[in-house]
Amino acid sequence: MNYPNKKQIYEKNINYGNRGMDLESLLNDTNKYLLDNNIAVIYKKPTPIGIVKVSYEGNKQVITKAYFASPSTLDYNGLYKGKYIEFDAKETKSKTSFPLANIHIHQLEHIKKVLEHNGIVFLIISMNNNYYLLPGNKLIEFISNNERKSIPYEYIKDNSFELKYNYNKGINYIDYIDLIGGIKWRKLN
Amino acid sequence: MNYPNKKQIYEKNINYGNRGMDLESLLNDTNKYLLDNNIAVIYKKPTPIGIVKVSYEGNKQVITKAYFASPSTLDYNGLYKGKYIEFDAKETKSKTSFPLANIHIHQLEHIKKVLEHNGIVFLIISMNNNYYLLPGNKLIEFISNNERKSIPYEYIKDNSFELKYNYNKGINYIDYIDLIGGIKWRKLN
Repeated sequence: MNYPNKKQIYEKNINYGNRGMDLESLLNDTNKYLLDNNIAVIYKKPTPIGIVKVSYEGNKQVITKAYFASPSTLDYNGLYKGKYIEFDAKETKSKTSFPLANIHIHQLEHIKKVLEHNGIVFLIISMNNNYYLLPGNKLIEFISNNERKSIPYEYIKDNSFELKYNYNKGINYIDYIDLIGGIKWRKLN
Repeated sequence: MNYPNKKQIYEKNINYGNRGMDLESLLNDTNKYLLDNNIAVIYKKPTPIGIVKVSYEGNKQVITKAYFASPSTLDYNGLYKGKYIEFDAKETKSKTSFPLANIHIHQLEHIKKVLEHNGIVFLIISMNNNYYLLPGNKLIEFISNNERKSIPYEYIKDNSFELKYNYNKGINYIDYIDLIGGIKWRKLN
């Protein structure tokens, strides 16, 4: 008898099981997988808002006026093996470069701070139907040495880890964390 | 000449400079001090809400209906020397015990998870005009061994670090972090 084992089934799903799902949903599933399997504790932070007006529906408070605020940190954070992890998820439809307008100036300052304090910080970029983990120091390095308002696709490919998608495990970024230590970084090969 | 030096001036402010300020404001000031002085990177997370309705004011999005959601993690998190830190701030007017109704069941589960993954997690409790840092494992230990719905003040005093307030530095919790390592914990004497 030659039934496929579970591992084989997983692998069959790679790269086409995620059709139509946005990056945020995929990462939420990934983080749920990591939590349920006791691998890491990573959450998406709540959306920052400025509350202007609160009313009551009976005893229950209801916000009736609020604005979206600019984030000064990244969207996801948590811990893995005692270490601080923080990242943001970015999607671009551009095939040639990643527009830096996607990242707020406060977020860039924050990334530098996290690196300085030996945290693990990165972007997950969805581009050209692939997922890339761009380490924070590689992002800062590019910005410090270039006047450009976007990062060429070549730079992203050369300085990132390409992440695999798996139907059950989601986007596997956690295996690369061990390779990224604060400002230290080495290329996977 | 015998002008007081800056340190002496700081110490004069201990314990009475914070009159009338709530714990959250004091901790926000503390975290700003830690960030500005490059000691640690700790932020309060945005309030979790469930957005029901969004309208437009011209081009600007405005939330016109939203509810407050129960937090499943703690309010503050960040990093210190590469390590993951998370805590919550709790105030009680009771002089004899700290009501456990202050902590959601999801938050307790989360505290256990953070301990399991070697994160540093604790409560800062304002009670009887003092600030106490109660390590996460001491909280879990109490709950596991007691049926009570509140923690007696004696237990808090015996198992916490008493924190000092300083007008310039805020509530000094960071000095105690080095003493708390995941589930390990030793009493300060």
